[in-house]
Amino acid sequence: MIPLTGHNLIAGKPSSNGKNSYQSTNPRTQEKNPVVFTDATHDEINEAVQKAEDAFENVPKEKISDFLKEVSRQILHLGDQLLEVADSETALGITRLIGERTRTCNQLDAFADFIQDTSYKEIVIEKADAKRTPPKPDIRRMLIPIGPVVVFPASNFPFAFGVCGGDTASAWAAGCPVIVKAHPSHPQTSELFAHAVNKAIDLCNFPKGYFSLIHGKHVEVSKELVLHPDVEAVGFTGSRRAGRAIFDLASHRERPIPVYAEMGSINPVFVLTINEDTAEQLANAITLGVGQFCTKPGVIFIKKETDSLIDQVVEKLQAKEPGVLLNENVKSNLINIVSKTKNIDTVEVLLGGHEIPHNLSFENTVFVTDSLTYQKNTVLHQEHFGPVALFVRCNGDDDLLNIAKNLEGQLTATIHVGSSEIKQAKPLVLELTKKVGRLIINGVPTGVEVCTAMNHGGPYPATTALHTTSVGMYAIKRFLRPLAFQNTPMELLPSELQD
Amino acid sequence: MIPLTGHNLIAGKPSSNGKNSYQSTNPRTQEKNPVVFTDATHDEINEAVQKAEDAFENVPKEKISDFLKEVSRQILHLGDQLLEVADSETALGITRLIGERTRTCNQLDAFADFIQDTSYKEIVIEKADAKRTPPKPDIRRMLIPIGPVVVFPASNFPFAFGVCGGDTASAWAAGCPVIVKAHPSHPQTSELFAHAVNKAIDLCNFPKGYFSLIHGKHVEVSKELVLHPDVEAVGFTGSRRAGRAIFDLASHRERPIPVYAEMGSINPVFVLTINEDTAEQLANAITLGVGQFCTKPGVIFIKKETDSLIDQVVEKLQAKEPGVLLNENVKSNLINIVSKTKNIDTVEVLLGGHEIPHNLSFENTVFVTDSLTYQKNTVLHQEHFGPVALFVRCNGDDDLLNIAKNLEGQLTATIHVGSSEIKQAKPLVLELTKKVGRLIINGVPTGVEVCTAMNHGGPYPATTALHTTSVGMYAIKRFLRPLAFQNTPMELLPSELQD
Repeated sequence: MIPLTGHNLIAGKPSSNGKNSYQSTNPRTQEKNPVVFTDATHDEINEAVQKAEDAFENVPKEKISDFLKEVSRQILHLGDQLLEVADSETALGITRLIGERTRTCNQLDAFADFIQDTSYKEIVIEKADAKRTPPKPDIRRMLIPIGPVVVFPASNFPFAFGVCGGDTASAWAAGCPVIVKAHPSHPQTSELFAHAVNKAIDLCNFPKGYFSLIHGKHVEVSKELVLHPDVEAVGFTGSRRAGRAIFDLASHRERPIPVYAEMGSINPVFVLTINEDTAEQLANAITLGVGQFCTKPGVIFIKKETDSLIDQVVEKLQAKEPGVLLNENVKSNLINIVSKTKNIDTVEVLLGGHEIPHNLSFENTVFVTDSLTYQKNTVLHQEHFGPVALFVRCNGDDDLLNIAKNLEGQLTATIHVGSSEIKQAKPLVLELTKKVGRLIINGVPTGVEVCTAMNHGGPYPATTALHTTSVGMYAIKRFLRPLAFQNTPMELLPSELQD
Repeated sequence: MIPLTGHNLIAGKPSSNGKNSYQSTNPRTQEKNPVVFTDATHDEINEAVQKAEDAFENVPKEKISDFLKEVSRQILHLGDQLLEVADSETALGITRLIGERTRTCNQLDAFADFIQDTSYKEIVIEKADAKRTPPKPDIRRMLIPIGPVVVFPASNFPFAFGVCGGDTASAWAAGCPVIVKAHPSHPQTSELFAHAVNKAIDLCNFPKGYFSLIHGKHVEVSKELVLHPDVEAVGFTGSRRAGRAIFDLASHRERPIPVYAEMGSINPVFVLTINEDTAEQLANAITLGVGQFCTKPGVIFIKKETDSLIDQVVEKLQAKEPGVLLNENVKSNLINIVSKTKNIDTVEVLLGGHEIPHNLSFENTVFVTDSLTYQKNTVLHQEHFGPVALFVRCNGDDDLLNIAKNLEGQLTATIHVGSSEIKQAKPLVLELTKKVGRLIINGVPTGVEVCTAMNHGGPYPATTALHTTSVGMYAIKRFLRPLAFQNTPMELLPSELQD
C-alpha cells in the first residue's frame, strides 16, 4: 500500500505550502475521503513549470518509448489500491475501473509503439539543386515537440483521461513535459498515478520535471497554470463552460497558446430504421457510466416509422437501477438543466425526471418532443450530462435533414439505417459530415476505439481545435510543430534529418 | 486590356452598393490612381459568404487541380497590364513583379500537382475485427475541407500573397471557397486577379461562389468578414497589430474560428564568422523590396571577431539608392519606430535614419548598439519594416546564447558559422530551434523556397498558429480537419475511404 500524503508532487518532490485545503467526497456515502489536499501556491506552480522547462531540454528522446511502457507497468503495480481508491472517489465500480485501467495502459503502450516509427514526424528532405536558377537550397523539415504542457483531466474518466490519460500520454510521446492539474473530484486517485509516474521516471532515469502533479480546488490555480508564460499548450476534457473559460484565458495571453479542449456533445442519433438490438444498444449507451460519457447519445431523432423505439427504450431504462453520479456538481448541473427542459410546455417526461433525494443519484430520464420545439429551444441543444435522453419526433426525411443542417458542432453523430434505405440516407450523411468529428452507422457513439484511424474531436463547441483529436495516435500532433532547416551541415541537424 | 470597374465581385457579380469610397495611391508620384472603389456593405458581405457556402457543397472536387492550373494560366494572360497596374500601386518595379508572378503561378501549379496524390488527406483505414473482445469496429479517417475561408492579402507581396497567393491557393486546393478582402493599397491589382479567377471559374464550370473579391478601406469590412457566423477560418499576412486584432476578434466569436496570421519577424542573424560574401548577402537582403520583407534580416548579432562586418554592410548600403516604400502607412510606421530607436542613448546611427521628404522613401539605415541595450529595450525587438538593420555587439558565445534564449518567436533565425566552429555553434542551434520556424546556416532568410519541406511560420508573435506554415505544400493542412467514419457501408463513404 502506498501511503497517501495530499502533497503536490513537483518534479517528484512533495510540497504543500498553500492555505486552502480540501478533501474529495465518496459519492456513495457522501462522506469525505481521508486525505487532505492543499491548493498549490504561486511558487509551487512556478517551480513545476521551471522544472518542466529544464526537463524539456534534457529528455532522452530515444528512451521515451521505454518510459511510456514503464508508466504503464507501474500503473498495473498499483494493483487493487488504485481501483479501491478510485471507486471511493468516483463510484464507477471496480469492473468498469478495471476496464478503464486496461485502456489507459494500452494507450500508453500504443503511443510507445507508435513513436518507434518516425513517420509521425512528417520528415521531408529536399536536397539542394545548384544548377537551378536561382539555386535551390537544401531544405529539411520535421515536427518537433512544443514544450511544457498543462493537462486538466476529466471527472468522468479518472484513468483514461486522468493523470496518465490520453492527453498526458500523447504529450509525453511527443517529447513534452506535462504538468497535471489533478481533478478535485479524485485527488487521491491522482496521487496514486503520480507515484507510478515518478517510479517510472526514476527507473528510466528521466528528468524529474517531465511530470508534476498540482492540486487546486479553487479556480486561481488553474488560471495561474494557463497564464504561466512558459507553458506552451493546454489539454482539457470537461464541460463547455470550463473549456471555454480556459480557451478565453489562453487567447488573451500576451503570447496566446493553443488550448485543446474536448467539451462534450449531445451526439445526435438519427433513426431511419430499428431492428431488434436498437433499443437495447441505445439504453445501454444512455446509462453507461451513469450517462456521464461525452459520447452519450443524448438526442434521438425519430420518424413515424421508428416511433415504437421510444416505448422500447423507456421500458429498458425503467428496468435499470439508477447509478451514483460522480459528484455534487454533476448532480446540481443535471437538476438545473432537466428543470429547464421540463419547463418547456411541449416537452413531455416519459420516464424519471427527478433527483433521488439523499443520494448522489438521478432517475433514468426520457423526454419526448416534436421537431419544432427542438428547433426553437436552445436548452434542448445542450448536453444533459447524466442518464437522460430526449426523443424528437420528426416529420420525415426532410425534417431530419433540416435538423442536421442546424446542428452545432458535435463529437459524433449516428445514423440507424436499413440496407434498403442507404441511398435515401446520403443527403443526411453529407450534412452530418460538416458538423461532426465521427459518424457512426448502426451503432452507438460510446466506446471510443483507441486506434490510428480514430477521431475524437469536432467543430466548436465539441472542441476548441477542430483540426485535432484527443483519442488515438494522431492526438500526438497537438504537441508538435514544424521546423525547417536550410543549408544546414549534417553535424548541426537532428539525427532524423541527416543523410 | 481589361476595363477596371472598382466593383466588389461577389461570386462573379459586380456590386458597389456602399457609401465609403477610396482610391489607391501611386507610391512614386503620390497621386491617386484612377479607379474608385467602394467599401462592401453588410448585404454584399453576407451574399459573398452565402455564395461561398453554396459553392462549398457543389465544388467538383476532382476538378480542383484543373481549376488551379487554369487560374495560373489566366494570370499569365493578364500580361503587361497586371505588371503595370501593380507597379502603379506598389512601386515594386517590373522586374521584381515578373519574378513574383512566376512564383505565384508556380504556387498554384504546385498545389495542383500536390493534391493529385491523396496522401495529404492522411487516410487511415482500420478494418473491423469481429473476433476481438470487444469486437473492433471498422474505422476510416481522412482530412476534409473546413468550409468558406476569408483571406487578407499582404501589402508587400501583391502577387505571391495577393488575391491568388499562397493562402488562397492552399485553401482552394483543400476544397474551400475563398473570400478575399482586397488590400486597400492595391485594389486595382486585386481586381485584375479577380478577373483571371472568374475566367477560370467559367472555363472550369466551377460554382461562382468559390471566389469573391470584397473591397474595404475601413476596418468595419474586415471585422464583419471575421465575425460572419458562416466563415470557418481566416488567412492573414501583415503586421502584428492587425494580425492580433483579427485573432482577438475570431477568438471572441460565440463560435471561435482559427486565424492563420503571419505577422513578420526581426529574423535575427548570429554572425560567428564572415567571409567575402557575407556583407553583400546581408546588404541585399536588408534592401530587397525596400526592406519590406517579413523575412528581412533585421537584427544582426556580432562578436569582436566579426565586428568588421558592420563597416562592410554600411558601405554596401551607402552605395544603394533608397527605393520607394509601398504606402504612407509603411512610411509613417517606419518613421515612428526609427525615432523610438534613435531616442535610446546607447544606440548609434551609423547610416541614414531619416525619411526622404516629398517622397515615399526612407534612407537606408544602420544602427549599432551593445547587447545590454538590446536586452533592455523592447523597441529593438520589434520589426522595423523598411530598409533598416540593427547590429548588436555581443561579448562572445555566452552572450549570443543568452540573447537567443530571450528571443521572442521568429519566422527565421540565421547563423553564419565557419566549418571549424560548427561544434561550438551547437548550443546556439539548439536554443534557436525553440524560437523559430526555420533555421538558415550561412545564408539569408529572404527568398522563401516554395516546396514541401518549407516551413514559413513559427511561435507567436511570428504567427498565431505555430503548428502551421503559410508557404509550401503543408499550407494546405490549415484548411482541412479530420473526420472518422465508423462501420459505414461503402455506398456512404467518400470514394477515398472505400475498399
